[in-house]
Amino acid sequence: MARIALDAMGGDHAPTATIAGALLALQELPPEHVIQLVGRTDAIRAELDAQLAAALPAVREQAGRLTIVEAAEVIEMTDKPSVAIRGKPNSSMAVGLRLQVDGQSDAFVSAGNTGAQMAASTFILRLHDGLTRPAIGTLFPSARVPVVVLDSGANVDCSASELVQFARLGAVYAEDVLGRPNPAIAMLSVGEEPEKGNAAVKEAHRELASGSGLNFIGNVEGRDLPMGMCDRGPVDVVVCDGFVGNVLLKFYEAVPKLIVGLLVKGGVAKEQIGAAFTGLDYAAHGGAPLLGVKGVSIICHGKSSPEAIKNGILVGLRASQSRMSDHIGQRLAAGIQGTPA
Amino acid sequence: MARIALDAMGGDHAPTATIAGALLALQELPPEHVIQLVGRTDAIRAELDAQLAAALPAVREQAGRLTIVEAAEVIEMTDKPSVAIRGKPNSSMAVGLRLQVDGQSDAFVSAGNTGAQMAASTFILRLHDGLTRPAIGTLFPSARVPVVVLDSGANVDCSASELVQFARLGAVYAEDVLGRPNPAIAMLSVGEEPEKGNAAVKEAHRELASGSGLNFIGNVEGRDLPMGMCDRGPVDVVVCDGFVGNVLLKFYEAVPKLIVGLLVKGGVAKEQIGAAFTGLDYAAHGGAPLLGVKGVSIICHGKSSPEAIKNGILVGLRASQSRMSDHIGQRLAAGIQGTPA
Repeated sequence: MARIALDAMGGDHAPTATIAGALLALQELPPEHVIQLVGRTDAIRAELDAQLAAALPAVREQAGRLTIVEAAEVIEMTDKPSVAIRGKPNSSMAVGLRLQVDGQSDAFVSAGNTGAQMAASTFILRLHDGLTRPAIGTLFPSARVPVVVLDSGANVDCSASELVQFARLGAVYAEDVLGRPNPAIAMLSVGEEPEKGNAAVKEAHRELASGSGLNFIGNVEGRDLPMGMCDRGPVDVVVCDGFVGNVLLKFYEAVPKLIVGLLVKGGVAKEQIGAAFTGLDYAAHGGAPLLGVKGVSIICHGKSSPEAIKNGILVGLRASQSRMSDHIGQRLAAGIQGTPA
Repeated sequence: MARIALDAMGGDHAPTATIAGALLALQELPPEHVIQLVGRTDAIRAELDAQLAAALPAVREQAGRLTIVEAAEVIEMTDKPSVAIRGKPNSSMAVGLRLQVDGQSDAFVSAGNTGAQMAASTFILRLHDGLTRPAIGTLFPSARVPVVVLDSGANVDCSASELVQFARLGAVYAEDVLGRPNPAIAMLSVGEEPEKGNAAVKEAHRELASGSGLNFIGNVEGRDLPMGMCDRGPVDVVVCDGFVGNVLLKFYEAVPKLIVGLLVKGGVAKEQIGAAFTGLDYAAHGGAPLLGVKGVSIICHGKSSPEAIKNGILVGLRASQSRMSDHIGQRLAAGIQGTPA
């Protein structure tokens, strides 16, 4: 039985989208799991009542698996990360995360201010030994299966040893949440050869290639990402610093817009394009785990639809049930050990 | 009158594609311009004769504007950059570039080994004062007009002052070759705010924002690139280090492949997609100038088609006729001056 805390106040369309997402999730979650809606009780109550009044009986039947946890403060999208820690100690983020520390919850999911969620998660859940910062593992749609790209924005200046840690974090995420045993880990660079790359990438490559215990397949280039493949086979995890990862992620999200525009101008029907592009929709992939914290904190896109929130909740459940955080701790402690306990 | 030296031996499809590209270019170049085919005379002669024998009379008529310049050695795609300088002093690259130094040619164009071309160009043409390395300015197709991204691969570890130099180089390229007066220059980062980015980006932002004389519009994010626009208006030049630029470039080249696959699976006709994607084809944009050398060296894609070679030659002509290299020298010398002489 897992208890998933959802930041009901987080995201551009909260609490409408978050509560609708919770109701969607209840239809898919096995009946032993419950969802904790964290935020202003009156706002949540009003929205929940309105949605339930309009819902099908099958949805209403599941509402007993929702609880409301009061949090008086809300972190705005424009708040600085530090606000999450010092300025608003009773925010829905802080309260939701503290539930985990207090043994009252198993995962936290939010579509709110990402910087604030990172800061609050690091401060409240704390990091596994050996880490200086958490990393965000984002799924990039590919022609094969989605590829984990990390870090995708938490760390803009990365040392070689941080890149090596990302490889370890990504390996556990791919194994535990995506169910890919012995995932293929690659380093993003400007050429396949080990001597290609910036200083941090070259040094991290050397460390990973010399007995890291990971299934390290070497460097991949930008062109391999959309394929999910390189010359040496499939790729599951791609390691890069958070500057590169963030630029790529935002670029990737915007390219379909450009291409849809070109296709529509070229006379292709919008419906046909939409159907083909379903797999590129970030909503289908749910949230991105903040990796390295002692616990589960799932970051959803600020624009998350109810479908995206639901998928974020499912990612939170898988991370919790697979004991991803414990495995990350063991993998980091083992250092060079090949497989997680 | 301009004399464009073409590396007849450079590229995956040389000399077939290079000579076909030269013949195509002659149809478009005003009659006073000539093309110098640099490479093994016998190989060039044989291929040229074969192509001319099969060509239309209009093409054959222009063949008098082609000359062959003997170069006994060929740089392979797998050769190390140093080979271009020390190992093969009589390569088509070295010979073609020396023509410029000797006042016998006005531009050099190659689809050969990029690392070797950079090394040979830097060694033979030399850099303008104040530069430590050249930068590659690549055009990224966008929903508006193509955006210059630099550096796109020459420099993987960049200091803030190198990023500032890229802004100056890119401004002259956009003005002289693309004909965009007072181009809008942006810094690629992970957020719009000046305090977002890695250490080099933040420092370069400060320098550019405080009296660089350029039309610096601040940071853009990955999502702004495919649009060619940010919240503050159109973007002409995007500055980044060569690691980020190269990863993005290769990623961008590969995304359409993924999307075409999805569309075809979704039942959209291939012909319709092809027509819509014409603007995304790198061949339409020709070569990327190696910026910062004293002279003109145009880098074409190794897979260049005759059309791409032709466009590379046209870029070389524009760079030469606009005196781009002189303007770069003046802009660098002026340092903080706003407009090139």
